Amino acid sequence: MTGSAAQPNEGEQYVVGVDFGTLSGRALVVRVRDGEELGTAVHEYAHGVMDAHLAATGAALPPEWALQDPNDYRDVLRHAVPAAIAEAGVDPADVIGIATDFTASTPLPVFADGLPVCEAPEFRDRPHAYVKLWKHHAAQAHADRINAVAEARGESWLPRYGGFISSEWEYAKALQLLEEDPEIYERMDHWVEAADWIVWQLCGQYVRNACSAGYKGIWQDHEYPSPDFEEALNPDFVGFAKSKLDHRIGALGERAGGLTVQAARWTGLPVGIAVAVGNVDAHVTAPAARAVEAGQMLAIMGTSTCHVMNHDQLVEVPGMCGVVDGGILAGSFGYEAGQSGVGDIFAWYVDSQVPERYVQAARDAGESIHDHLTSLAFAEPPGAHGLVALDWVNGNRSVLVDAALTGLMIGQTLRTRAEQGYRALLEATAFGARMIVETFGVSGVPVREFVVAGGLLRNRLLMQLYADVLRMPISIIGSEQGPALGSAIHAAVAAGAYDNVRAASETMGRVARAVYRPDPTAAEVYDRLYAEYRLLHDHFGRGGNDVMKRLRQLRLEASA
Amino acid sequence: MTGSAAQPNEGEQYVVGVDFGTLSGRALVVRVRDGEELGTAVHEYAHGVMDAHLAATGAALPPEWALQDPNDYRDVLRHAVPAAIAEAGVDPADVIGIATDFTASTPLPVFADGLPVCEAPEFRDRPHAYVKLWKHHAAQAHADRINAVAEARGESWLPRYGGFISSEWEYAKALQLLEEDPEIYERMDHWVEAADWIVWQLCGQYVRNACSAGYKGIWQDHEYPSPDFEEALNPDFVGFAKSKLDHRIGALGERAGGLTVQAARWTGLPVGIAVAVGNVDAHVTAPAARAVEAGQMLAIMGTSTCHVMNHDQLVEVPGMCGVVDGGILAGSFGYEAGQSGVGDIFAWYVDSQVPERYVQAARDAGESIHDHLTSLAFAEPPGAHGLVALDWVNGNRSVLVDAALTGLMIGQTLRTRAEQGYRALLEATAFGARMIVETFGVSGVPVREFVVAGGLLRNRLLMQLYADVLRMPISIIGSEQGPALGSAIHAAVAAGAYDNVRAASETMGRVARAVYRPDPTAAEVYDRLYAEYRLLHDHFGRGGNDVMKRLRQLRLEASA
Repeated sequence: MTGSAAQPNEGEQYVVGVDFGTLSGRALVVRVRDGEELGTAVHEYAHGVMDAHLAATGAALPPEWALQDPNDYRDVLRHAVPAAIAEAGVDPADVIGIATDFTASTPLPVFADGLPVCEAPEFRDRPHAYVKLWKHHAAQAHADRINAVAEARGESWLPRYGGFISSEWEYAKALQLLEEDPEIYERMDHWVEAADWIVWQLCGQYVRNACSAGYKGIWQDHEYPSPDFEEALNPDFVGFAKSKLDHRIGALGERAGGLTVQAARWTGLPVGIAVAVGNVDAHVTAPAARAVEAGQMLAIMGTSTCHVMNHDQLVEVPGMCGVVDGGILAGSFGYEAGQSGVGDIFAWYVDSQVPERYVQAARDAGESIHDHLTSLAFAEPPGAHGLVALDWVNGNRSVLVDAALTGLMIGQTLRTRAEQGYRALLEATAFGARMIVETFGVSGVPVREFVVAGGLLRNRLLMQLYADVLRMPISIIGSEQGPALGSAIHAAVAAGAYDNVRAASETMGRVARAVYRPDPTAAEVYDRLYAEYRLLHDHFGRGGNDVMKRLRQLRLEASA
Repeated sequence: MTGSAAQPNEGEQYVVGVDFGTLSGRALVVRVRDGEELGTAVHEYAHGVMDAHLAATGAALPPEWALQDPNDYRDVLRHAVPAAIAEAGVDPADVIGIATDFTASTPLPVFADGLPVCEAPEFRDRPHAYVKLWKHHAAQAHADRINAVAEARGESWLPRYGGFISSEWEYAKALQLLEEDPEIYERMDHWVEAADWIVWQLCGQYVRNACSAGYKGIWQDHEYPSPDFEEALNPDFVGFAKSKLDHRIGALGERAGGLTVQAARWTGLPVGIAVAVGNVDAHVTAPAARAVEAGQMLAIMGTSTCHVMNHDQLVEVPGMCGVVDGGILAGSFGYEAGQSGVGDIFAWYVDSQVPERYVQAARDAGESIHDHLTSLAFAEPPGAHGLVALDWVNGNRSVLVDAALTGLMIGQTLRTRAEQGYRALLEATAFGARMIVETFGVSGVPVREFVVAGGLLRNRLLMQLYADVLRMPISIIGSEQGPALGSAIHAAVAAGAYDNVRAASETMGRVARAVYRPDPTAAEVYDRLYAEYRLLHDHFGRGGNDVMKRLRQLRLEASA
């Protein structure tokens, strides 16, 4: 299909946003003028997540490993982008820019020219040569050492991460690489986020994006951790930042370069169009949801929840995941927090604690089991179940920052029903969100509006619950492809169609404001339940009774 | 069938024990010489439990009521006794005595001759004229007043009941009767336990048995609560003990009288044979299980657990249900404790928290869902589930004595499975039992052996768990009709075939000693879990955090 002069889209310009997820990549074609989404396509990674075996050899991988093959990312460019253009029915010649976002931290070792080390034939059989996906959790021991050393040395950057560097991030994974496969570590020229590697593939330029460099690479106040710190971790780690990490930093929305001839051949897009600096899937969603002003907290609610928000001051909020200058929007301080289990907890409960008669009734009613339990549970007023739960079934990522915490449910009687336990868990996640919001507030980073993206926004009673618990209006993103739309917005900025991401967000972003407003009567009851949640949160989370850690220890011993 | 001289049972003597339960009565024919059980029969109460409507009028009953019609008890004598004799194939002429046991406290108002007030035609339509079954819980407000007044006045008998008089007992139900239907209260001559009324029906003599008089009637040190106490409750209650309650007390195993002509016609048994003093179903089981010596705690484990044990000293154990001189065995102090939810909790969990695939797998394997969950749960070593629970889903009856307490489960992760939660609840009940055993021990009433009767003894892994948690051998009653066999033992004593209940128990009782012995390795892990249970027990049960009570209050408000 060609955009002939006779067609109504004459003179229109388009951008392509590509969202690289855990199992697939999605391309979205968007009209620059107004953000209209015209076509989309998904391409699944041929190798998916390698968490049991290395595909090249069939060799078993140790527990907690999660690798990917970087060529799968190129395939998304080869397949999903042309397919999305075709579905949109636009002339590729009218596409003025492309931008990408990625899971993070998802780093890989590469040679000086950007070739992944795993693509050198002599290293195809080496697990450490591959991409370490965000959920590769085998570097926990290394993260523990990083945190212990940083705390002992009083590193100034540690509070920027709520006092805690994750095993998922660049440093922990690099230290594991050094100590478990020093040859690969030695041979790699760069330790690159996939978010930046894909941009490099598109435009031939290596630019580290400010978002992942800040949140995942400990880049703070224009520098990385010192060689002294590196030496305290491992003498062979000295020089890591300088030789393997340090590179040009690009602001979000900046042009990284022009589309190469090779990438143009992959994508079918014009040579030389703008390729934006890379981005992270959660953060890139903020402009898509028009949640870029101070006080607008965006919550991407799915299996877990990631919260991102801008603010004009640098403040150290207890237990946040990170604060990064320009981490969400150039010129603002971007804050990130998170709840490590949300939809995951609901799914676990449905799978392990809900009798068949509910599943059957949901099927008979033609609704999902989650919708069925939700409507049953909310048929009675707040507080009628007599329960309170903690939302720590998958640990606690923000405020307490303790992965060893576990679940708690209190108040069961012989009349307690399955849907009541389900509701208590929904409420627990809302209380967890309120704990984060309040912690930001008392730290001087007030939250005024809660904007929701992600799959859970479809549960309307859950959204109303959040409004009631937070006593705050809940706004809802207007796109089903938030990250890809966010990338498209960055592509438009990189192509010069808008002055900056804020301006592009205003026109191209999509949000329905204050769809849910607090019900004061319900909110009063939830205040009482939240008071109980806080008491339990502080007792079990701050050392009043470390039973959860002792039970975890016993579980590990008993299972060993 | 007659016992002719040619038959091998020539010269044998028999007794009949009749166990009056919640829904039916069971008669058991037992050989006096060795306790052999020869025949049994059950008769269901025609009116069952009247908890919604009064049968005579169809009128609705208020919440928490539970009435019975006393003529249903006579029908057990008319039907179950002859049927059991027939099944045993013995000559009724060889039966030398009959004894009964009953649920308690199950009182009814009667006229001077023993006629139930509800059998007077003018009172057939009055709910308060009927038997108030043990689980009639509508006198809670009256019990609360009794406890408050007794505590304020420092009544010396209050500690004999762990500081707590139950709404199920004679005083609370009588006070309700007085205040809600004073005419019936006025017209009744006696407020009689059904346990004693049925004996009265058999032998024409009203004898209050020492067991229910002590445990349910506040008869301590040969007296009832004082008129001053009665007046503090309600001026119209003055004289209750003296005029409505006080009567000859009979020791357990004593002959109350001889079988009347009328009762002989009902039962087919010889006129004049011994009728024993009444008894309570739990306590009467102790001699049946040969658990009458000091240190032998009998636990009747079913929907709830009742613990009874003899000791030679009078001690006030915190939170016990009661201590009564001769309450289990004449000449010993009988102690009672209880766990308000055991099998009930397991049933609740299976009904509300176990997915269909488990139910289906159990069906495929031809086993009960409880057996299926138990074997799955115990396939991994202790502590591997990482959970600890409190067994308060139906409140706490002993040690803390607080019906407002509720359940707690802690330690869930996204990998926690349904059978692991089930096991945590099994363990919680074992920890609850250990808490009772230890409280008795530190109070100077040591427990040496744990003897189990009741339906749960069939779960062998549960029994092993109790052995491991208690670090004590578990013995198992050898009869499936523990209460009826206990009654038969009392009948033999009343008939003079044995000198006393202890001697009859040695010969006629049935127990397998130390069937389960503690596994020291498992016991060490359970010690660690029990330490966690204790911390949580004391924190949530002794005022560290009264969240359970506040949630309950909120539940009541929200549901109102």
